[in-house]
Amino acid sequence: MRLSVPDDSLFGSANLPYGVYSRPGTAPRVATRYGDHVVDLALLLGDDVFAAPSLNPFMAQGHERWAAVRAALTDALAGDVPPEAVHPLADVTLHLPFEVADYVDFFASEHHAANLGRLFRPDNPEPLLPNWKHLPVGYHGRSASIVVSGTDVVRPHGQRKAPGDPAPVFGPSVRLDIEAELGFVVGTGNPMGEPIPVADAESHLFGVVLFNDWSARDIQAWEYVPLGPNLGKSFASTVSAWVVPLLALTGAKVPTPVQEPAVLPYLALDEPWGLDVGLEIEWNGEVVSRPPYSAMYWSPAQMLAHLTVNGAPTRTGDLFASGTVSGPSKGERGAFIELTWGGAEPVTVAGEVRTFLEDGDEVVIRASAPGVGGGRIGFGEARGRVVAGEWTGG
Amino acid sequence: MRLSVPDDSLFGSANLPYGVYSRPGTAPRVATRYGDHVVDLALLLGDDVFAAPSLNPFMAQGHERWAAVRAALTDALAGDVPPEAVHPLADVTLHLPFEVADYVDFFASEHHAANLGRLFRPDNPEPLLPNWKHLPVGYHGRSASIVVSGTDVVRPHGQRKAPGDPAPVFGPSVRLDIEAELGFVVGTGNPMGEPIPVADAESHLFGVVLFNDWSARDIQAWEYVPLGPNLGKSFASTVSAWVVPLLALTGAKVPTPVQEPAVLPYLALDEPWGLDVGLEIEWNGEVVSRPPYSAMYWSPAQMLAHLTVNGAPTRTGDLFASGTVSGPSKGERGAFIELTWGGAEPVTVAGEVRTFLEDGDEVVIRASAPGVGGGRIGFGEARGRVVAGEWTGG
Repeated sequence: MRLSVPDDSLFGSANLPYGVYSRPGTAPRVATRYGDHVVDLALLLGDDVFAAPSLNPFMAQGHERWAAVRAALTDALAGDVPPEAVHPLADVTLHLPFEVADYVDFFASEHHAANLGRLFRPDNPEPLLPNWKHLPVGYHGRSASIVVSGTDVVRPHGQRKAPGDPAPVFGPSVRLDIEAELGFVVGTGNPMGEPIPVADAESHLFGVVLFNDWSARDIQAWEYVPLGPNLGKSFASTVSAWVVPLLALTGAKVPTPVQEPAVLPYLALDEPWGLDVGLEIEWNGEVVSRPPYSAMYWSPAQMLAHLTVNGAPTRTGDLFASGTVSGPSKGERGAFIELTWGGAEPVTVAGEVRTFLEDGDEVVIRASAPGVGGGRIGFGEARGRVVAGEWTGG
Repeated sequence: MRLSVPDDSLFGSANLPYGVYSRPGTAPRVATRYGDHVVDLALLLGDDVFAAPSLNPFMAQGHERWAAVRAALTDALAGDVPPEAVHPLADVTLHLPFEVADYVDFFASEHHAANLGRLFRPDNPEPLLPNWKHLPVGYHGRSASIVVSGTDVVRPHGQRKAPGDPAPVFGPSVRLDIEAELGFVVGTGNPMGEPIPVADAESHLFGVVLFNDWSARDIQAWEYVPLGPNLGKSFASTVSAWVVPLLALTGAKVPTPVQEPAVLPYLALDEPWGLDVGLEIEWNGEVVSRPPYSAMYWSPAQMLAHLTVNGAPTRTGDLFASGTVSGPSKGERGAFIELTWGGAEPVTVAGEVRTFLEDGDEVVIRASAPGVGGGRIGFGEARGRVVAGEWTGG
């Protein structure tokens, strides 16, 4: 059969993202999305590496192979496609597209870092901490808590203590927030002791996902000094079902903002390595923010070079996320703690007043970027609904 | 053949730890250590779950099965053992005994936390931070960097900036340290949204390893605010080759120190859940410290209950470490930054003056605990030698 996709589709031949799908009674397998269909890649290309329940075996084959498969896929979709490989998107279940090895979350937006500095350290005239412009600050998070778009998020229980309270109290988080981010998937890693030079990052990175780093601000505020966020983040993080190949984003490369003071040589790169990806955050059906990824201070290549500069190994399936994407204006903030200024400036969303998330609220992050040769390519969505949690921990 | 072990062996029938070994030309398989021999468990017990290169398949079978296998193993070793299952320890290579899923490092010693508070916040009259006695503070670390005892540790490169320096400099760490810890291996995890009650931790925990959380104090000091340690830790962590089953440590259970103020109910436990494990740190062949695990404030059961209280899932192969084990006296400190008081009080080790680690230095952590029915059981060793790192990152 011949497949065709409308010219304005975000999933035309300029995109060809990778995901994992199943139909009732069948095992998960790798597919691409083409318009509003999924196309089974093992059937389309006759290669059993795609008959796997995750992208990891394919990603491990390396950059040259990714390019060759993308070319073969483009050709195959332009020709006669076996009908048994094609399913309407509405008829399939999408799964977590890769097995997550180590997961690191960065803090790469100057606007986000400065906003949080103003909120948490109001007496300090300098909103950024001294290290922030010298290195991409980041921390490791919980790989097991990463779920695919559409998975409900159970409101976490935990300890919180407001500054005036005599002792911490236990209960469901009352300051549940989101962080709209992009995530970068490592296709091939580096051995221990052999850092990835910043100029080589491109060949290790397989693709990009949407990422919602759900955050319980009250739990986080009480726990995070001195070892960083833990339970305030580790209950759930949502990724989109489609991994957009980095090879599809060559038309989206833009310079990062000027980095001043100059970075150390291991972080310096002549090529533009920012990404012109426009995000959109929908809260209960209403778009409340449009964070621009192009405003991010630290590039993905710098994050990967920094992550490995001490010799730390990365592996196929490693995921590092950018941290909240926030632009300079209020309508570009990527976390609700910024959008509502710590809860002090409530917003009206779909007719209801909100500071943080209520049970039943749904958040959807979407994004698009310029494709090669005109038009735009989409990232799908990172969708999650907050549900009340019953306490079962004894 | 009949095997016998001297009465004073740390690896007699009261221990029976699990590890993974290979001989030249053979694939890694699960074994126990009995005296100075390894015994192949697939051959001894006729069960192919042990013909795997890691303990994970066996650990995933659950607590009842662990107890049944321990009983069967005890019986089998007392009888006629197939000679092909037995190899002298000196003839085999030992491997990382399990695949590490998520890795979390805690900070459970009051003496260590207070010493670091005095070193890093000398102007503050209270050495502990306000949250420390209310929750076991911890952070996620890098699973891929966990290596088995005997693996060389390459001195990491990275950024450091002393308080008076105008800008950070790049180079090999000049304050390379250790942290002597115990690590706890999760055998069976919990699904997302279903916390492990503190009273149930016992049935999820498979065993205990020695753990050296190598730390580059200069890199750590510059990077860690506000998101916690990252590159200062992620270059390498060493685990012992043998996992001592929790079932072998019933004779080592002791009460934890009194917890005052009282902990929240989800952390409260009537049973004693401290462990009377005596650690020993050897630096270039000289024992420099004997940290007592019995002095640890937070118990492993409390750490696991806290780790999952927000609904975070754990998996087979999760590893959480205790943080530095330090006792109240100077000869019981588990990190060299404490032992040398931030470098201000050098020590003489094997005839040479030291503050932090020099290239070529070797550190070995050992431990033992009371066995059931008298005698002591051993944990093997976590050994690592520091080697100079050549910069390869561009």
